Amino acid sequence: MAKDVNNIRQSIRKGEWTKPTTGIDTGNTQANLVILPKKDAYDFLLFCVRNPKSCPLLEVTDAGVPVPDKTAPDTDVRTDVPKYRIYKGGKLADEVTDITDFWSDDFVSFIIGCSFTFEKPLLDHGIPIRHIDEGRNVPMYRTNIPCETAGELSGPMVVSMRPMKPENAIRAVQITSRFPSVHGAPVHIGDPGAIGITDLGKPDFGDDVTINDDEIPVFWACGVTPQSVVMNSTIDMMITHAPGHMFITDLKEEEHAVL
Amino acid sequence: MAKDVNNIRQSIRKGEWTKPTTGIDTGNTQANLVILPKKDAYDFLLFCVRNPKSCPLLEVTDAGVPVPDKTAPDTDVRTDVPKYRIYKGGKLADEVTDITDFWSDDFVSFIIGCSFTFEKPLLDHGIPIRHIDEGRNVPMYRTNIPCETAGELSGPMVVSMRPMKPENAIRAVQITSRFPSVHGAPVHIGDPGAIGITDLGKPDFGDDVTINDDEIPVFWACGVTPQSVVMNSTIDMMITHAPGHMFITDLKEEEHAVL
Repeated sequence: MAKDVNNIRQSIRKGEWTKPTTGIDTGNTQANLVILPKKDAYDFLLFCVRNPKSCPLLEVTDAGVPVPDKTAPDTDVRTDVPKYRIYKGGKLADEVTDITDFWSDDFVSFIIGCSFTFEKPLLDHGIPIRHIDEGRNVPMYRTNIPCETAGELSGPMVVSMRPMKPENAIRAVQITSRFPSVHGAPVHIGDPGAIGITDLGKPDFGDDVTINDDEIPVFWACGVTPQSVVMNSTIDMMITHAPGHMFITDLKEEEHAVL
Repeated sequence: MAKDVNNIRQSIRKGEWTKPTTGIDTGNTQANLVILPKKDAYDFLLFCVRNPKSCPLLEVTDAGVPVPDKTAPDTDVRTDVPKYRIYKGGKLADEVTDITDFWSDDFVSFIIGCSFTFEKPLLDHGIPIRHIDEGRNVPMYRTNIPCETAGELSGPMVVSMRPMKPENAIRAVQITSRFPSVHGAPVHIGDPGAIGITDLGKPDFGDDVTINDDEIPVFWACGVTPQSVVMNSTIDMMITHAPGHMFITDLKEEEHAVL
């Protein structure tokens, strides 16, 4: 795995790296990206504030500014994500590796915490991460857990899932509780049916992974939630990262730790 | 000190209780209140997101709704604060005990965490709180610590101050770190001059309190910051609580604790 964040960023910017960013162990916080016109930004900002487990805000740019000054001042949100999704009228319209041609001066960028950030602390504590071991994207599922509504934005929470032995699940609760700004503690452990997931083998986003007999699924709120919510809406235009293809910030993982 | 939150609320609603709410030990979270027209709500919401130490958001209501459903569903923000301040064009225009006559259907209410919430946990750990012992409002000061700007909202952070013996100051850091949604850990300890405070005996808001020779001042980010910031702006109309005269929510203090 490449270790130099600048090399990875260059490779993403040139369009050479178009795969998921899971397992990049530079210690840099990875983030979800949502870009919206200013007119829709209030409802979305309110949605994030009302749903902090799914949408922990790391930064919100001023309209028209493509550089997130606080979290990654040497980057450009138009080129530095491996793969983007473009939604029009709530429908997925395109998947691209550069959004320079789609950029508008009234676009506001929301940088939202991502659970990939706490995967390194989990690994450091000897907890294996299945999708990394299997070279796949993390499995993500729509649940029946309703988000708090904001304007016309409403819909269920999306979760990411990591299968773990029970003793590792307990330790993972402790470790991830220290990282509230990157989704924090799990939202559910154990019974997928209880949160409306009927088949763990068929994730709504990302890839399926092996779950062994002695393991239980552990679910975290996921920053793909906004994409799912906008697909429930009639918002004209939204650009996001493609699930698992994250924006890499300058923030170090430990900067998110509390206590 | 009265212990029943409903009695206190009734008394506030009737206009009988018009004094500060510090030291009310019902275990209920107290909150700062900011009310703005919808057109100014985006900049203010962004200001809160960018300055979470000063403005930890507990709830944002929909426009025109005077009842904060999540934090205090049996209350009304128009009557349930002991004293309000009305700002027009950035200037303090009036101080009233009821804002029903000023209410407009496009008003958005921001319920913001208050450091009074962690005073009970401090007392429970045997740390005396001087302004409570002296029956005064907490002293608050404008600092030279700049807030992150949002739209035309900019200006320095306001802090509250509690004098403590050094060993209590250390314990207070530990205790308040558990309460990030009500300002969390201190922003400064010890030297007032280093954050632009020239005279602890002359607070910008609230009352002065005794500081003994064996004590150091401990400073927390304060929810009066928005009032100070709006006084720097040309925003037409804003209504807030009067400093120290807080909105009492249904949230219990321990609901804010992490780990």
